[in-house]
Order: sequence, then C-alpha cells, then structure tokens
Amino acid sequence: MPDVSARNYPVGTLNRVKRRPDRGHYDHETVHRLLDAAALAHVSYVVDGWPFCTPTLFWREHQRLYWHGSNSSRMLKSVSSGQRACLTVTHFDSLVLARCGFNHSADYRSVMAFGCARLVDDLAEKRQALKMMVDRLFPNRTALLRQSTEQEINATTVVAMDIERASAKIRCKGVVDEEGDYALPIYAERIPLTLVCGVPEPCPRLLQGVQRPIGLEQYRDGNPLETAVLAAHRSTYRD
Amino acid sequence: MPDVSARNYPVGTLNRVKRRPDRGHYDHETVHRLLDAAALAHVSYVVDGWPFCTPTLFWREHQRLYWHGSNSSRMLKSVSSGQRACLTVTHFDSLVLARCGFNHSADYRSVMAFGCARLVDDLAEKRQALKMMVDRLFPNRTALLRQSTEQEINATTVVAMDIERASAKIRCKGVVDEEGDYALPIYAERIPLTLVCGVPEPCPRLLQGVQRPIGLEQYRDGNPLETAVLAAHRSTYRD
Repeated sequence: MPDVSARNYPVGTLNRVKRRPDRGHYDHETVHRLLDAAALAHVSYVVDGWPFCTPTLFWREHQRLYWHGSNSSRMLKSVSSGQRACLTVTHFDSLVLARCGFNHSADYRSVMAFGCARLVDDLAEKRQALKMMVDRLFPNRTALLRQSTEQEINATTVVAMDIERASAKIRCKGVVDEEGDYALPIYAERIPLTLVCGVPEPCPRLLQGVQRPIGLEQYRDGNPLETAVLAAHRSTYRD
Repeated sequence: MPDVSARNYPVGTLNRVKRRPDRGHYDHETVHRLLDAAALAHVSYVVDGWPFCTPTLFWREHQRLYWHGSNSSRMLKSVSSGQRACLTVTHFDSLVLARCGFNHSADYRSVMAFGCARLVDDLAEKRQALKMMVDRLFPNRTALLRQSTEQEINATTVVAMDIERASAKIRCKGVVDEEGDYALPIYAERIPLTLVCGVPEPCPRLLQGVQRPIGLEQYRDGNPLETAVLAAHRSTYRD
C-alpha cells in the first residue's frame, strides 16, 4: 500500500534520474500535476521477453493510475496478472535550435511511474473506474449518458497500478549554448509547441435542440489540452 | 538485414494488431509517413526485468530508426548491448464524446516498431547520424553550425535499430455510437487536437544582424508540428 502521508515518491535505482539529475523531481505535487494535465500516456510492459509500448488514455486517483481497453488487447492480457509496468507521460514543449549540433535539444515535462499493474475485477470498483474515466476529462458527464450495459462493462478491462516509484523530469530553458559560442554569428531559437484543442465538432446526428452541456467550456478552439484536462481533473477530484 | 525491396513489414505475433484489427496497417508507406511526421517517440526496453518507457527525439532512415542521448543515460546503457526495444510514435488527434461511456474514445495514428537496438560505434556512421539528427528536422542546418568537437561526439551515444516488425494503428472516425443511441437526446462531439508550433523565440543573445536562415519557414505560429517535421524529413532525405 502506498504511504498516503508521504509528500515524495521514494527514490531508488528504478526511478532516480541519472542523466541530468538536476532535471529530476520526486515530489507528489510535481509528479501528480504533470499526470493530471495529460489524457494520453504510453504504457510499457514485457511480454515473452519483448518490451511493448502502447499509447492509452489514463488517469490518476491519489497514488494509483488507471487505464482501460478491450479484453482482447495484448497489453491488458499481459498486465492483468500483476505484471510490472511503466507508465510515461510527456508534455513536449519546444524544439531548441542551438549554435552547435550538440546543444540542439527540446523542452519537455515528463513523468515515469513504475508499479505492478492488476486487473480490476471487483464490479463496484470497475463501475466506479469506468465512471471516472469519463468524468475526469468531462466533469459530471456520466450523469447525462445512456447507462452502461452489463455486456459493455464485461467487454471492458480496467487496469489499476499503485505507483511504487515515480520521477518527473523537466527541461524548460530554451537555448543554452557554450559560453564561447554566443560570440558566433549563428542563428539560434526556441520553437514553442502546444497540444491545442480545435473547434469542437458536434456529432452530425445530434437530435434537434440538444445543446452542448455546461462543463465543456475549457475544450475550446486554441486552448491547450493540458489546461482543459487539468481543470477537469481538479473539478472532478477536488484536489 | 531488412529486405529493402519489401513494401510491407512482415506480420507476426509481435506486431499483429489484435484489438481492432481493422485499424492495423503494415505497409511501409503508412508506417514511415507516421514516423517521419513525428519528432518525439517513446522507446521501451527492459532492464533487470522492469520495463522502461522513455521519451526521446528520434528519426528514420530507410528501415532503420535512430535516437541518441548522453553516455550516462540508463536507456542507452541498456540498449547498447543489442537489447530488444519497441519504439512507439503517437499522433493524438481528438477526444471523442459519445452517447454512452463505452463509446467514448480518441482518434489517433500510432506506430509500434520492434527490433534490437545497437550502439553506433563506427565514427563515420556516428558523425553522419549526428548530422542527420539535426538536418532531418532543420534541412541543411548543420552546415551553418559550429562544428562538433571530438569531446562532444564522444559524450553522445547514438543508438540504431533496424525495424524487424512494425504496425500502424489508426482511428479517425470521430463519434460512433450504437445505432439505437442516436435517438437519445444526448450531446456528442469530437474535440480535434493538434500539436502546433507557436511564435519562434530567437535567442536573446543573437549577434546583431544575424537573421533566421531559410528552411525554417514551416516552423511558424499555428502550423502543425507534423507538417513541418514531415516536410523537413522529405526535403533532407528526398523520399
């Protein structure tokens, strides 16, 4: 069980940031904020000696991560028996053009979280997880939906992983060159990158008079996805 | 050695798309286009029985993938001895709000590529790789830079992986509900997502008169990163 009073993830060989340790963070606040601001993660696990890296929607609840999928997916079959997994979230913030090749870089904020994934087979926990999977992105949305059938719930696999180790790694400094290189007549810049929402596209088969419900305002043209997702998570979980 | 005359990656247990096989693609054109349109990948590998999933800049050359980092990174130490690896690229295209929880989804285009990673220790191949690492994103840029020192080249590790198996998985259909659910007065929409460039930020320490070189025009405010990256890759590799 995770230590719920802890403020930091324990640091060990698994999660210590070795390359550029100055970029490493282990406190819950930093790690959780980066997780909660993302909708998509890459989950890595081992099957028959091969590493697999799969993109998936996910979310955090306290020190636990959830993701889901169909019963037939290779990833879920693999992790459901208590497999070791690594869930990684990356916010890709810029490309950096420096005055030499060596200092070309990128700004980013990433989290790697390690633990043992388990299948959620308790029906009450599974129903709650499937509800939160939607509501953490779109607060209170499940209350407006057609309720899930037993068949749909059975066809879905939910995986939970208590975070045993985690680290955040952040680079946010743009162009940094060797001191002597600043005197060279070479162009250098930072190209900022943002994952943004476009204009929402209502389903063409909406019944007449059906309006966009309140609570989706953050998902608007030009708004960064992370702003919308973090706000939704905080609204739903109130933390 | 990869079969250079092949038009498709061979399909096996490692790369067959099991969940939603209708979304799977194995042809070089689809797989390579998705790889070439991305700057960032997640590389997964196994160390002491634990899966690791690390974000990294990467690029493709024919049927080979390259990425790099410092000699001290855990990932590179691990793969340099010929370790199995999985490199995944994901273009996250939308969030999909359906009329029931089960049909909430996302549009995406992803590639998983499998192979054995090896350290590039031949100096000529390494120099060429470090040049292409920059030029595939910014055509001809290395010709304008301060040349790399021997120390810088020695401090960098380059990893190459011939793709043994690969698959692309694509969902691009927005809202799809159960036929009966379209009659319900429930709001549904697709929220498009795009990773876009912002306004480029010149280094504040540029020498007076140093202009932005030609070839960076695609990296401009509002342009999707994938448009700029794909154009750069094609310009540099002419394929």
